[in-house]
Amino acid sequence: MRIAVDAMGGDDAPGVVVKGAVESLAILNGHDVVLVGDSARIDAAARSLGGLPARVEILHASQVVRMDDKPIEALRRKPDSSIARCVALVAGGEADALVSAGNTGAVVAHATLKLGLLEGVRRPGIAVDMPSIDGYTLVIDAGANVKCTPEHLYQYGVMASAYCKDVYGKADPRVGLLNIGQEQVKGNPLVKEAGALFEDSALNYIGFVEGRCVFSGDADVVVCEGFVGNVLLKVSEGVADVIIEMLREAFQRTLRRRIGAKLCEYALRELAARVDCSEHGGAPLLGVNGSCMIAHGGSNSRAIANAIRSAAEAAAYHVNEHIVAGLHT
Amino acid sequence: MRIAVDAMGGDDAPGVVVKGAVESLAILNGHDVVLVGDSARIDAAARSLGGLPARVEILHASQVVRMDDKPIEALRRKPDSSIARCVALVAGGEADALVSAGNTGAVVAHATLKLGLLEGVRRPGIAVDMPSIDGYTLVIDAGANVKCTPEHLYQYGVMASAYCKDVYGKADPRVGLLNIGQEQVKGNPLVKEAGALFEDSALNYIGFVEGRCVFSGDADVVVCEGFVGNVLLKVSEGVADVIIEMLREAFQRTLRRRIGAKLCEYALRELAARVDCSEHGGAPLLGVNGSCMIAHGGSNSRAIANAIRSAAEAAAYHVNEHIVAGLHT
Repeated sequence: MRIAVDAMGGDDAPGVVVKGAVESLAILNGHDVVLVGDSARIDAAARSLGGLPARVEILHASQVVRMDDKPIEALRRKPDSSIARCVALVAGGEADALVSAGNTGAVVAHATLKLGLLEGVRRPGIAVDMPSIDGYTLVIDAGANVKCTPEHLYQYGVMASAYCKDVYGKADPRVGLLNIGQEQVKGNPLVKEAGALFEDSALNYIGFVEGRCVFSGDADVVVCEGFVGNVLLKVSEGVADVIIEMLREAFQRTLRRRIGAKLCEYALRELAARVDCSEHGGAPLLGVNGSCMIAHGGSNSRAIANAIRSAAEAAAYHVNEHIVAGLHT
Repeated sequence: MRIAVDAMGGDDAPGVVVKGAVESLAILNGHDVVLVGDSARIDAAARSLGGLPARVEILHASQVVRMDDKPIEALRRKPDSSIARCVALVAGGEADALVSAGNTGAVVAHATLKLGLLEGVRRPGIAVDMPSIDGYTLVIDAGANVKCTPEHLYQYGVMASAYCKDVYGKADPRVGLLNIGQEQVKGNPLVKEAGALFEDSALNYIGFVEGRCVFSGDADVVVCEGFVGNVLLKVSEGVADVIIEMLREAFQRTLRRRIGAKLCEYALRELAARVDCSEHGGAPLLGVNGSCMIAHGGSNSRAIANAIRSAAEAAAYHVNEHIVAGLHT
């Protein structure tokens, strides 16, 4: 397995990406990594780590897509960007999967147009793992598609269900459709029409679910349009950060509490790790004809390493074949 | 000031509502409460509390709107519901404000049609206070309106800004428009068009904000359509619950941690109270010609008491006059 990694994507690129690529070797068995980007800068980052192992190589790309570049313009004006090169490696069969923590819209646009969509798929969707009380809930779409039709939502359910089965080994994933109430009468026309498609499907559809359900563990997959999913993701991060911050402050206010907090130190670290997105690392872009993993712009090296592992797993499990089969049943 | 309270609304009605009404007397100065609903059941609840104080009276209503009733049908078929009676008291000038923890859609429909909208207002919106790192952020709309136009969003900004000024005493509230990125190119057509209206306005508009911003304290008001706001609200509750639950579990796992947790007990209680919606209690339905406070269906008596206080405050501060003035500048 060979994974193409966008070395120029993310807030701390290429440093943390190069470090993450090296770290990934410890958690991947017999996989190779191609770091794609400005070779001089990648070299410099590699030198500061004491050089690159043999299984990590560098492919030069002369351009970088910035976070504020418009995706379609980036596609046209930056044909030699690190994102374009990564996608081209997968499209040409020279890599089995790609990972980028760069401009999400640009990754989606490049992957959609250069890899193409799987047979029958209308729109790709980003599936993000959210920590729940007893595991993880896969939320799709986290922002690939801000103008959804009911059919797009239905297909997201099929795609995420296949991913959940293959990669997480869940036998019959419970699929919920995100709404503002569980009752049939609630919601906007989009979710009401999508609900009817799910009702008629072969999926293990559990009906409308509310925002709380993402964290309660009552569903394995929660489907929503990209705008809503993106808000959900960032709101969750915001709440988690603010609670942990409030907790740290409250724990420092008296000597008694400082002693107590010291005794609970590991519990607090466990919690922070549990709600930290870097533990999972990557979100698959489902629906494209290839394996494409999108990492958080704020990824640290551990998140990059985990995203590389997830990309390899998704490719190894043949998720895409099962998505196509799922759409044709 | 006289507040009409829907005694039949909420998961534990009428018990907790009657209790909340009595408790509100301690935090309200010289206000009266009218408990509206099934008088036999209200009486029974009152007796178990040792009777009602003189400042709390009962008005019988023979019907109850259930949580799964369709709002418009409830309006037509249940003319003597507790919600209809509460709204009628305000419409007829016999009460200054109303509070309900019942079917939100039904409260919105009744208030909109029977109180009418303020001059120039297109749609009412529910404004909910979310705890941020250094105070509260007012999010509007939390679910009154699932089909927004750019003008609706703009008016929500005007209304919540007026409320923030009057009730919270913030001089020039910073208003952000919720989007999936801060860059101008991001988002769906709705937010892009609404953004242009905000840019041209007299509001202290700070531009597009992301979901995290609700909790960072960077904005006083965050505007979004009802579907998104409702998801945001319930996701936040879900995250907060799951983190506090994870924390409790982690703190019980070893003896060392149990001792530490004991020393930090008050810190944990402070945190739970800080993120607990019952501390604030009510969310104003802004835009209707009257003061209408919507409480959470899961409200406890403290939340009901706080909602009654908020309803009285909103009426006392003449927020509605300032909303109308704001829309005409």
